[in-house]
Amino acid sequence: MARESLHQLYVDQLRDLYNAEAQILKALPKMIEKTTHTGLRQALEFHARQTQGHVERLDRIFTMLGERPEGEKCKGMEGVIDEGQDTIKRYDDQDVRDAALIAAAQRVEHYEMAAYGCVRTYAGVLGLPDQQELLQQTLNEEGDADHKLTQLAEEVVNVDALRAG
Amino acid sequence: MARESLHQLYVDQLRDLYNAEAQILKALPKMIEKTTHTGLRQALEFHARQTQGHVERLDRIFTMLGERPEGEKCKGMEGVIDEGQDTIKRYDDQDVRDAALIAAAQRVEHYEMAAYGCVRTYAGVLGLPDQQELLQQTLNEEGDADHKLTQLAEEVVNVDALRAG
Repeated sequence: MARESLHQLYVDQLRDLYNAEAQILKALPKMIEKTTHTGLRQALEFHARQTQGHVERLDRIFTMLGERPEGEKCKGMEGVIDEGQDTIKRYDDQDVRDAALIAAAQRVEHYEMAAYGCVRTYAGVLGLPDQQELLQQTLNEEGDADHKLTQLAEEVVNVDALRAG
Repeated sequence: MARESLHQLYVDQLRDLYNAEAQILKALPKMIEKTTHTGLRQALEFHARQTQGHVERLDRIFTMLGERPEGEKCKGMEGVIDEGQDTIKRYDDQDVRDAALIAAAQRVEHYEMAAYGCVRTYAGVLGLPDQQELLQQTLNEEGDADHKLTQLAEEVVNVDALRAG
């Protein structure tokens, strides 16, 4: 089926994100279970709650658009999460594993930042300011989560991982 | 085999990036071939040349470390590129396809920004300032490439895509 409009691209990309968020909601508890640094665990638990809010914002947008959120599996997020799970398993030392876990989580955050940045911009061009605002809020939260992870890596986790060996 | 040091995580993550860059070098010509906006094509051609420079920087770092760059396939980048290729094929209108292509390319850039950000930080913690500087240079170039794509999307491509339908 030919898809020829920016509106269709917008809906397709929102569906991609909806599936990506569902994958993240499933993966986060497994990541949280593996953490040993309290600050990291708390940051990931906070982000899991935020992710639920991101899904709810997408639901509101699909309702506004009169569209259903169902779409294909987001292959990009699938690859990023698969790789992250492999990465974490590889390290026996708990501090090094926490550092690896941050590296995996930042890839997830950055995928979302790229994707939300695009749909936020499309919403603006399409003249949908309410949706643009909702997407901007999520984009800001993804950016904040990424900065928090960088801060944890720099201040605590990498330093402990350095002591490990 | 147990992997228990931040140094090992650093080398593993550099190998992941080396493989990711190789996948990008292979994928970019196919993306460039599909573009119709001259500015977008030029930006991607410029980035293909930059990517070659990123591989050379990684080669220098592997030489400094006395390590070989071979590693496992970067599953994260594989997923992001596969998804991008599927996405682009979906749109018949050339302006909408260019907008989709930017969305795909920004996912690639953001994966790299996350990954280079991590290894740059590890290099600092491990006391390897020359390597940290090389990785920071690449990180800056990835960030610049991402901003250029946002600018092209906002100023030209999305506007043309809006006219398409």
